[in-house]
Amino acid sequence: MANDLLELHRQRLDDALDAIATRGYWSAFSEVPSGKIYGETAKADGAAAFKARLGSPWSGNQPGTASMVGSEVSPYGMELGITYPSPDLDGMLAASKAAMGDWKRAGIDARVGACLEMLDRLNKRSFEIANAVMHTTGQGFMMAFQAGGPHAQDRGLEAIAYAWQEMHRCPPTATWTKRVSKTDSVTLEKTYRVVPRGVAVTVGCSTFPTWNSYPGLFASLATGNSVVIKPHPGAILPLAITVEVCREVLAEAGFDPNLVMLACDTPEAPMTAELVTHEYVKIVDYTGGNEFGDWVETNARQAVVFTEKAGVNSIILDGIEDARAVTGNLAFSLCLYSGQMCTTPQNIYIPADGIETPEGKMSFDDTTAAIVKAVDWLLSDPARAAEVLGAVQNEATIKRVQDCSSAGGAILRKGGPIENERFPEARTCSPTIIQVEEGDEALYQQECFGPIIYIVKTAGTARSIELASGAARRLGSLTCGLYSNDDEVIAATEEAMADAGVALSCNLAGQIYVNQSAAFSDFHVSGANPAGNATLCDGAFVASRFRVVASRIPVEVPVEASA
Amino acid sequence: MANDLLELHRQRLDDALDAIATRGYWSAFSEVPSGKIYGETAKADGAAAFKARLGSPWSGNQPGTASMVGSEVSPYGMELGITYPSPDLDGMLAASKAAMGDWKRAGIDARVGACLEMLDRLNKRSFEIANAVMHTTGQGFMMAFQAGGPHAQDRGLEAIAYAWQEMHRCPPTATWTKRVSKTDSVTLEKTYRVVPRGVAVTVGCSTFPTWNSYPGLFASLATGNSVVIKPHPGAILPLAITVEVCREVLAEAGFDPNLVMLACDTPEAPMTAELVTHEYVKIVDYTGGNEFGDWVETNARQAVVFTEKAGVNSIILDGIEDARAVTGNLAFSLCLYSGQMCTTPQNIYIPADGIETPEGKMSFDDTTAAIVKAVDWLLSDPARAAEVLGAVQNEATIKRVQDCSSAGGAILRKGGPIENERFPEARTCSPTIIQVEEGDEALYQQECFGPIIYIVKTAGTARSIELASGAARRLGSLTCGLYSNDDEVIAATEEAMADAGVALSCNLAGQIYVNQSAAFSDFHVSGANPAGNATLCDGAFVASRFRVVASRIPVEVPVEASA
Repeated sequence: MANDLLELHRQRLDDALDAIATRGYWSAFSEVPSGKIYGETAKADGAAAFKARLGSPWSGNQPGTASMVGSEVSPYGMELGITYPSPDLDGMLAASKAAMGDWKRAGIDARVGACLEMLDRLNKRSFEIANAVMHTTGQGFMMAFQAGGPHAQDRGLEAIAYAWQEMHRCPPTATWTKRVSKTDSVTLEKTYRVVPRGVAVTVGCSTFPTWNSYPGLFASLATGNSVVIKPHPGAILPLAITVEVCREVLAEAGFDPNLVMLACDTPEAPMTAELVTHEYVKIVDYTGGNEFGDWVETNARQAVVFTEKAGVNSIILDGIEDARAVTGNLAFSLCLYSGQMCTTPQNIYIPADGIETPEGKMSFDDTTAAIVKAVDWLLSDPARAAEVLGAVQNEATIKRVQDCSSAGGAILRKGGPIENERFPEARTCSPTIIQVEEGDEALYQQECFGPIIYIVKTAGTARSIELASGAARRLGSLTCGLYSNDDEVIAATEEAMADAGVALSCNLAGQIYVNQSAAFSDFHVSGANPAGNATLCDGAFVASRFRVVASRIPVEVPVEASA
Repeated sequence: MANDLLELHRQRLDDALDAIATRGYWSAFSEVPSGKIYGETAKADGAAAFKARLGSPWSGNQPGTASMVGSEVSPYGMELGITYPSPDLDGMLAASKAAMGDWKRAGIDARVGACLEMLDRLNKRSFEIANAVMHTTGQGFMMAFQAGGPHAQDRGLEAIAYAWQEMHRCPPTATWTKRVSKTDSVTLEKTYRVVPRGVAVTVGCSTFPTWNSYPGLFASLATGNSVVIKPHPGAILPLAITVEVCREVLAEAGFDPNLVMLACDTPEAPMTAELVTHEYVKIVDYTGGNEFGDWVETNARQAVVFTEKAGVNSIILDGIEDARAVTGNLAFSLCLYSGQMCTTPQNIYIPADGIETPEGKMSFDDTTAAIVKAVDWLLSDPARAAEVLGAVQNEATIKRVQDCSSAGGAILRKGGPIENERFPEARTCSPTIIQVEEGDEALYQQECFGPIIYIVKTAGTARSIELASGAARRLGSLTCGLYSNDDEVIAATEEAMADAGVALSCNLAGQIYVNQSAAFSDFHVSGANPAGNATLCDGAFVASRFRVVASRIPVEVPVEASA
C-alpha cells in the first residue's frame, strides 16, 4: 500500500522537487481559507472538531505513558482542559526504537509515500489545526490558519522533497567491474541500504508549534527514523493532532504507529533535557530560546542536533522612495502577532542626519515619527488591530515589555493592552517603540522577544550596517530589512549580511514583509550565526539523518560485459 | 583564469558526477605506475625529487611560523631530516581567515576549477608523493603509489564532485512571483550566496596521510573555506608536498595562497587540541585513533567535526566454495601493510563445528590451519613478503603485538621481523595469529591495531554475526567479510551489518579484498557506528561545510509575467 501512496502523491513530490531546485514561488497547499478549496463546511467542521476536544483527555493511544498532563490556556482567555500523555521515557523510547524495523526496511518510496499522505490529511484538518494554533499560540485566526496549516505543510513537504532527493543520490544497487590484470576482471554486485540514525526528537515551540516542527518531523521520518514529538507545554494541541494523523496513516499503511509519538511535560517538571540526552535519541530538532538551545547543542552529544533559535533582527533605513508605503509595510511587520515571530525586526537603525528620499533628506525625527504614526494608524481600527496583533502567548512577554520600557531610552510609543471584542479576556499588547543612541548597546543589543522595538540613532548607514551585522555575529539574527536607493549601499549590505548569515530583504513595500519566509524559496535561519545551527531547508538539514551502508558480492558476468 | 580551469577539467568533473550517481567502477587517475602513463622518466624524476628534499627545510613560504620542526624517520630506516613550519597559531589562523575574502566571492565554478587543477598537478607528482608516503608510512612502494597517489586523488575528486553538486542544488538567483490579491502580485528577485563556515582544519594520520586527508581538504576548499593541514608528526612530507601544490595553483589563479597552509607540531609538544578548538576554526576533519577522535568530537564544539577513526573489523566464516582461493584472498588482506589499514580484519569468527564446503564440513582446526598456511605461503617469498608487508609505521605497534601475544589465547602463528633485502633496517613484523574462545572477549573485543589476528571459535554462525555486529556497535567497525554458501546467512548478515553500520563484503576471492574501498563506489566508514561520524563520501560530508544566505528585492515585471 505504501508505494501506492507515493504514486498517489507523485505529482506533488515532483513539483516540490522542481520548486526547491528553481526556488520560484510555489505552494502545494492553499493558504486561502476558502470553502471553495477546503469544502463549504470545512470552517465550521474544524471549529466543531476543536471544541469537541476541550475538557477531555487526548484520545491518542500509545505505550509508555506514565501520567496525563496538560494545562494549556488560550492566550484569548479560555482553559483548554485537555490532558496528554507524559511518558515513562525508557518505555516510550523503547517502543519508538522498536517501531523502526519494518519502516527502515520498507524503502525510500514507501516511507516518502506515507509521509506525503500524512501531509495531505493534515491539510484537510487545517481548520481544526488553525483553531488549535490560535488558542495555544495567540495568533490571529488568519495567521493561525496559514502559518499553522498550509505554510507548515509546505515546509514539511519541502523537507520530504529534500530527504527523497538525498536518499536517491545513491542508487539501490550497482554493478562494479574492474580490470585487475591484462586478462582478468572482477565484478561485484553492490547493494546500498539507507539506514536511519535512531530515535529522533522534535522539540516544539510555543509560537509556531507546527511550522517549526514539521520540517524536522518529516525529514527524520522520511529517512527511516522514528520520531518523538515533545511540544512546548503551552502549545501541545496542534502537535497532538499532528501525531494523531501520522499514527493513523502509519497504521493504515501497515507500519507501527509508534513511529510517531507524543511526549508531554509540564513547566514544573520539564523533561526535555533528559529526553534529548537519552542514549536512544540520535537526532534532535529544537526550536526555542537560545539559552536552552545552546544547552541542547552542547549536551546532546549522542545525537545530531538541529537548532532554530532566535536573535536580534534589524531594519536599516538609508533611503526610501515612498514614505507612506515603507512605513506602512514596516508597521505591519512590527505589529504582526505582537512581534512574537522569530523573524520580527527589533532594532531599526536610522542615521542621525536622516534618510534620503526623492524630495531630499527626511530628518531622523520625521522618520521616527512616520514609523510611529504608521503603527498607530494600523492599530486604529480595533478589529484590524485584534486580528493583526493576535494575543500574547506568554505572560513573561508582557513582563519583558514593562522591563524594557523602564530600562532606558526615550519612549516614542507606549504599547499596552488593546480591546478585543470577540475575546475580552485576551492577553494583548501593542508595540512599544523606544528611541536609543547607538552607544546604548546594553539596551538594544540583546534579544527582547515580543512587541518591543528600538529605534537606534546612528552616525550613518555604514555604522548601521556594522551594528546590525555585529549583532548577528554575536547574538544571532534571522532577518534584516534594508531600505536604500543607493546601489552601493545595497551591495555593501548584501555582503555584510551574507557574511553574518542573515537573510536580507531590500526595499519591501506593499504586501510582502521582512518576517515572511516562503517554503521552497526562502531559507529560514541560515545556520551561519548563533540564531541556529541549521536552516529550513537544505541538503545539510536532511543528509545526516541517515547513512548508507553497503554490501558487495562477486558475480559472474557474461564475457562481453567484462571486456 | 579560475573559470578556465573548470572548463579545462570539465569532462573529469562530469565523469566524477556520473560515477557518484551510478557507483560503478571509475577512476580519474591511473593506478598503474607505468612510464607509458606517467612519462618514461616519471619514476626516476619522482625518486630524485624526493631525495632532493632530504636533510633540508621545507621550502614553502607561509606566514605565522614560530619555529621549524620535524623528525620524520622512515620505517625503512633512514632519517628524512626535513623541517617544517610550526605555527604561531593566532598568526597563522588570522592569515588563513583573511585569505577567504576573494575565494568565497569567486563563485562555485572558479573554486572547483582551481581544486581540480590542484588534483591534476598532484597526479603528476604521484611518484614523488609515493616515495614520500612510502618513507613516512612504511607502505610498500606499489601501495604507496596507488593509495598515496591516484587513489587519494580519486577520493579528493569524489569530494569535489559532491561539493560542486551540493552547492549547485540552489540556483544563484530566482524570480519569485506571488499573487497577493485578485489583482496584484509581488515579484522578488532573489540572490543566493554560498557562504563558507570559516577556517577548516584537516588532521592527518600517520598511515594514509593523503588518502584520508584529501576528501576533507578539497571538500572544505571547494565550498569556500580556507584549510590548515595538520599532519601527523610522523608523516608530514606527503602533505607538505600537497600544500606546496595547492599554494602554487592558488597563487597562479590569483588567489591568496594562504587558503592552504601547513601546521606542524612534534610528539613532545602536540598542538592539535589547541588548534581544533580555536575560535576561528569552524570545520575539523580528523583521521586517527578513537581516543583523541572522541576528544575532538566532544571538545571542538565551535566547529563541524568529521571523524574517521578505527574499530574492530571481522571476518565471518560460515561456508566456502574453494578453500585455496578463500584462504589466499584472506591471507593477502591480513598481511597487506602489516595489518595497518583501518579496514584490515582483526577477528575471524569460525564455528566450533567447522564450516560448510562442497565436499562437506571442514573442521575448525583444518580451517584455521588453512588460514595460517596461506599466510605462511604468501610470506614465503622474501621479496613478495617485503612488498606486501611493507614496514611498521610506529614502534608502538611492535610493542602492541608483543603485549597481545602474551595476553592469552593460543598462538597459531607467531609473527616477527622479516628480512627486507633492500632496506635491512626496516621495522618489520609479520602477522601473529591467536586462537581464542568466544568467551575471551576481553582479549579480542578491543582494537589491536597492527599485524594481530584473532581466530574466534564460536558456537555457530548466528553467534559469529552477533559478536561481530555487537563489537561494531560498541567499538566501531569499518569492514566485515562474510564467507557463506547459504543465502539466508548472507541475508541475515547483510541486515545485521547494515544495522551496525558496517560495510560488508561477501565471498571475496581472487584479486579483490575486504580492506579495499574504491572511490566513487564504496563508502569508507559509514558514520553509523563509533568508527567515525562521517563517511567518505556522501552529501552529509559536504553539505554542512557551507551555508546559503539569500537576499531579495522587489522588481518590476512585465504585465504578462505577473498574470
